[in-house]
Amino acid sequence: MAVEGSAPGKVILFGEHSVVYRGPAIVLAIDRRARVVAEERSDDRIYIDALNLGFSGYFVGDAYHPEQGEAWRGKRLAALNVAARRTMERLGVESGLNLKVRSRIPIAVGLGSSAAISVATVAAIGALLGGNLSKDEICALAYEGEKVIHGTPSGADNNISTYGGILRYERGVGFERFEVERIPPFVIGNSRRKRSTKMMVGNVRALRERNPVTVDGIIDAMGRLSQEGLAALLGSDLPLLGDLMNINHGLLAALGVSSPELDLMVHASRRAGALGAKLTGAGGGGCIIALAETPRLKQVESAIRRARGTPLRVNVSYEGVKTRSVG
Amino acid sequence: MAVEGSAPGKVILFGEHSVVYRGPAIVLAIDRRARVVAEERSDDRIYIDALNLGFSGYFVGDAYHPEQGEAWRGKRLAALNVAARRTMERLGVESGLNLKVRSRIPIAVGLGSSAAISVATVAAIGALLGGNLSKDEICALAYEGEKVIHGTPSGADNNISTYGGILRYERGVGFERFEVERIPPFVIGNSRRKRSTKMMVGNVRALRERNPVTVDGIIDAMGRLSQEGLAALLGSDLPLLGDLMNINHGLLAALGVSSPELDLMVHASRRAGALGAKLTGAGGGGCIIALAETPRLKQVESAIRRARGTPLRVNVSYEGVKTRSVG
Repeated sequence: MAVEGSAPGKVILFGEHSVVYRGPAIVLAIDRRARVVAEERSDDRIYIDALNLGFSGYFVGDAYHPEQGEAWRGKRLAALNVAARRTMERLGVESGLNLKVRSRIPIAVGLGSSAAISVATVAAIGALLGGNLSKDEICALAYEGEKVIHGTPSGADNNISTYGGILRYERGVGFERFEVERIPPFVIGNSRRKRSTKMMVGNVRALRERNPVTVDGIIDAMGRLSQEGLAALLGSDLPLLGDLMNINHGLLAALGVSSPELDLMVHASRRAGALGAKLTGAGGGGCIIALAETPRLKQVESAIRRARGTPLRVNVSYEGVKTRSVG
Repeated sequence: MAVEGSAPGKVILFGEHSVVYRGPAIVLAIDRRARVVAEERSDDRIYIDALNLGFSGYFVGDAYHPEQGEAWRGKRLAALNVAARRTMERLGVESGLNLKVRSRIPIAVGLGSSAAISVATVAAIGALLGGNLSKDEICALAYEGEKVIHGTPSGADNNISTYGGILRYERGVGFERFEVERIPPFVIGNSRRKRSTKMMVGNVRALRERNPVTVDGIIDAMGRLSQEGLAALLGSDLPLLGDLMNINHGLLAALGVSSPELDLMVHASRRAGALGAKLTGAGGGGCIIALAETPRLKQVESAIRRARGTPLRVNVSYEGVKTRSVG
């Protein structure tokens, strides 16, 4: 018997970086999903086949044994191993597992691939081993895995991958979910440059230590933009939403987290008729997100391609984590 | 007899756009000068030879008669014609004039070429016709010319071209001049794209009308940056000055006045070791200004060239308007 779990990736619409200090971030689940097929093994290995990402190998306990790809992959895969083991502990079951990972979410560019894979893994194992895990439980178990890689992540990524939809996250306040009836597709522009969230967050922290008043002023402005941006999204005021995205991009650039690749995609999108465009995620590499009226979407995609990015049209997805039996 | 007047161009270090609303702008005179040689004619024409800019022609009264180049040049040359006539009125003299304009300040990219030419013209005519014009008078007469083209300009351009040095300008407050003992050269990166100040100022006004609170917050932050930037300049705190330039560039981008060309030169300069880089002037085209320690200047210049800009190394110049007899 095998069970497939799947969960959506995400894109940050507003609040990257500022959310580290204060104010909300607005995060959207996207209709690109990670899929993980789980089946039992007779030994105690947790075998991970992520061959479409270029690697496979297995864990015995915490030790990773690569078969394909580099040994350092084990560090990232440790999230899966930990999430899988915590899930089995929760269910009171011990088993070896085959986990086949097939994700359509580009990795390491801020689209939540890692959390989506963890959430899908927990859900698949839960269903495979007969547990009746609630979404809250899936979310919490996936978070255990995320912590192994990211220290103390906000939890926004595993939350959005579990529940889908639109999420408002604020430190010390928590999560709030929203639905919007009509929301156009967004175009993501992927620079295909991996970035380190940790390094970018560190750079902003250093800039803030050198210029506390100025940088705090910018962070406050970004928090207000997040809140106004959510209202514009809920009210389907697309021109306002576009303005706010454009302004937010500049403020992120003021914090030093943009890059030539991102700026070029942002300018190209706007010139092709996008109502707004901004970098999304930690910056330094990764992606931009552009908003355009439907008749303009193709032009925006072409413009991103000419600016050497890879366009990806996404819709907000209200479909959170799911499982299905795959024989 | 002929007299040459000369006056420096300028570069805005902080406060472009925000100065339209509130807060100071910090403007530097640069060691690139416009030169105008004036001599009397026996007729009543004001003949202008700006052949190294590609045009020449003459005014009879307010009517421009092109000899080389397009008729619309007359619109810009009207500033010279008006400044010349006002100067002669002030001196109580009537004469025809030959004005030979030779400027080393790139035109229409925000480096104050127009005001420098007006100031040099007034000074040359004053000395030629035996007037003993004070700098204040030269500045005021040149402003009469500037008004013909720009409506009600701030007066910062003719002020800096007259006096040189470092100028703080604030609406309703006026002008204040500063000197710094040691100040490194700056590198200007010229996109060679002409821009319309009027259009860019109009775009910012429209954005502000749509988003008053957000945009006013950014303008306030820019005003504070100007003030801190002046302090950093006077204190020769170059790393701080660089940070503030970088932040200011992002805020200008948030107002929508950057462009792909400017962003690329800014990123290229920083990657080549500049302590800071920002667009200067109205944006949309025009120039960037980069700050770097002296050993890094060449790398920054090469980087600007690779980003398809034209680098121009400039020093702050304390030499304001001057005249000399040229036989």
